[in-house]
Amino acid sequence: MKIGIADTTFSRVDMARFAISKIPKSFQIERYTVPGVKDLPVACKILFDRHKCDIVMALGMIGAQPVDKICGHEASSAIQIVQLQEKKHIIEVFVHMDEVKTDKALYALAKNRTEKHALNTIELLKGKEALIPYAGTGRRQGFDDEGPVRL
Amino acid sequence: MKIGIADTTFSRVDMARFAISKIPKSFQIERYTVPGVKDLPVACKILFDRHKCDIVMALGMIGAQPVDKICGHEASSAIQIVQLQEKKHIIEVFVHMDEVKTDKALYALAKNRTEKHALNTIELLKGKEALIPYAGTGRRQGFDDEGPVRL
Amino acid sequence: MKIGIADTTFSRVDMARFAISKIPKSFQIERYTVPGVKDLPVACKILFDRHKCDIVMALGMIGAQPVDKICGHEASSAIQIVQLQEKKHIIEVFVHMDEVKTDKALYALAKNRTEKHALNTIELLKGKEALIPYAGTGRRQGFDDEGPVRL
Amino acid sequence: MKIGIADTTFSRVDMARFAISKIPKSFQIERYTVPGVKDLPVACKILFDRHKCDIVMALGMIGAQPVDKICGHEASSAIQIVQLQEKKHIIEVFVHMDEVKTDKALYALAKNRTEKHALNTIELLKGKEALIPYAGTGRRQGFDDEGPVRL
Amino acid sequence: MKIGIADTTFSRVDMARFAISKIPKSFQIERYTVPGVKDLPVACKILFDRHKCDIVMALGMIGAQPVDKICGHEASSAIQIVQLQEKKHIIEVFVHMDEVKTDKALYALAKNRTEKHALNTIELLKGKEALIPYAGTGRRQGFDDEGPVRL
Repeated sequence: MKIGIADTTFSRVDMARFAISKIPKSFQIERYTVPGVKDLPVACKILFDRHKCDIVMALGMIGAQPVDKICGHEASSAIQIVQLQEKKHIIEVFVHMDEVKTDKALYALAKNRTEKHALNTIELLKGKEALIPYAGTGRRQGFDDEGPVRL
Repeated sequence: MKIGIADTTFSRVDMARFAISKIPKSFQIERYTVPGVKDLPVACKILFDRHKCDIVMALGMIGAQPVDKICGHEASSAIQIVQLQEKKHIIEVFVHMDEVKTDKALYALAKNRTEKHALNTIELLKGKEALIPYAGTGRRQGFDDEGPVRL
Repeated sequence: MKIGIADTTFSRVDMARFAISKIPKSFQIERYTVPGVKDLPVACKILFDRHKCDIVMALGMIGAQPVDKICGHEASSAIQIVQLQEKKHIIEVFVHMDEVKTDKALYALAKNRTEKHALNTIELLKGKEALIPYAGTGRRQGFDDEGPVRL
Repeated sequence: MKIGIADTTFSRVDMARFAISKIPKSFQIERYTVPGVKDLPVACKILFDRHKCDIVMALGMIGAQPVDKICGHEASSAIQIVQLQEKKHIIEVFVHMDEVKTDKALYALAKNRTEKHALNTIELLKGKEALIPYAGTGRRQGFDDEGPVRL
Repeated sequence: MKIGIADTTFSRVDMARFAISKIPKSFQIERYTVPGVKDLPVACKILFDRHKCDIVMALGMIGAQPVDKICGHEASSAIQIVQLQEKKHIIEVFVHMDEVKTDKALYALAKNRTEKHALNTIELLKGKEALIPYAGTGRRQGFDDEGPVRL
């Protein structure tokens, strides 16, 4: 099984390192680094098409300005299209720079979200029912789980 | 007839259970659990393409922040594309966490909306005219019906 | 010539009835009723693809909340895609529940907009030049015409 | 060479007349009039596909309400798709009714923007380098040029 | 290797000149000038399809009004689609006129962003791993780099 990792030079944290640390050695990894999030969708496309990846993680960081939010939306919309064309998952791991207030918190957020999603990536490769035990349990990536509703 | 159910680990309620409880045993069910709403469109695509579903219910929960709303929009837009490609319905059952104020109300909302849409799903499988008797009657899912205008 | 009519159970007015009342008996009508506006695009697609309609009217009502507006946008965007795929018009007749303040006004608005657009539908079936005499004349559906600019 | 002109009955100004007045007699013109801007994309598609136009001008007017702005966005997004499918330009000439305050100013704006874009249309038909002499010169349509930055 | 450059007459700075100045003579350049950013996507498409470019730079300027922001979004969304169809990068270099306050700063911003992205363009042509050394380092175009997070 081959896992693609697309990441950016815009990000202030080397998110790919966190992903790679959680992926067992039995998986092949193909990495593709681009300038920013808007360059990620075609990188994902190429990782599937030319490099025969079975799933791709798209790692990006998004600024705090309105224009940055729109860039993120454009990237995400195109990432949706790639998934539908390839019939394969892209696990999008986007960190917004205004989710937290300090560099330290930004690093921790990027690490937590990327690592948890690396584990999701492995689960999805096992098949459509691997995550059923966790359905509706309020899982979160980047922060603590919210958990299921309390009745 | 085969009904697909795509749901998420992000949701704080096991919405799939509500859907399954309303679907008669004569229908086959294929379930696909993914991390969040943005992973639902390709799951729906695979449920049609690989698992030969005739219709899919896409069950998701959406957070209260602006970024969550955009995620929901990206998921919904891609769900539209899948429907047009497959020429089959996807009944989207999205619950916004800020529609209600308590965990208890969130549970009730998710249950009501999912169950009513499970019944819509069955009706749509009967053909394009099954819902004509209810056209223009102000039906709602999640809350009480508004009913037709009062002249 | 065959005219498709796609409508919803969400709408609080039976808009299809207004459309049908304006379409001459010489046209065949195919009706498809779905739960809400987001189910309309694939219904339109099926009306063209399976039921061989030459044009479709998509009749829907949209709530007053921000989330409703986004739903309407998602439906409209997908309706655009269907038109481009089929190279046929879909006359979108959407009524926003916050355009007016009373049930009575909502009914009148839905009736006026649907009827006028039913006439547009007939005109468009005559060919690309049928509406040239009215180009730039400030026609409105749902309310009175604004008319051309006064110099 | 054949130029398509798609326009609307919603517009309060007969914009097509301005366009036609600027197009030399050596060009053939195909006109397609539709109700509103959301009907323009498929009209453009048909002008390319059935009427073999080499380029199309899409002339529309957009109201002042938020819902009108969304309609314009939906139309523009679909117009982008048509261009990519056909590999041909659509010159979009949209006038927003809230760009100016009087009927007289609206007329002048529509005239200026349409005429200047008719000239752009002719230039684009000459090839990809015809407009290079004006690159980066701050040209505007509808209002006076802003001109290049002053250092 | 052939690099496409698509630019606009709307821009108040001749951005293409900055790009060309940074591209080594060993690369062929194809230039395509259009009126505004919404004309760029099909220009990019044609640069790939007819002129066989390996990568394209899309250079544009975006006004300060809300309607301008929407235009930019429509252009960017279509540029995403072109990339996915062609499986080739388009480096989008958009300058917003409200990012800075003076003509002089606008010129400097356009120059810096275009030049840095010209270098990114060259790197991407070397392959998917050429930018790995800079991954997660907080690079910016148009302004100074932010650099990696400080722990």
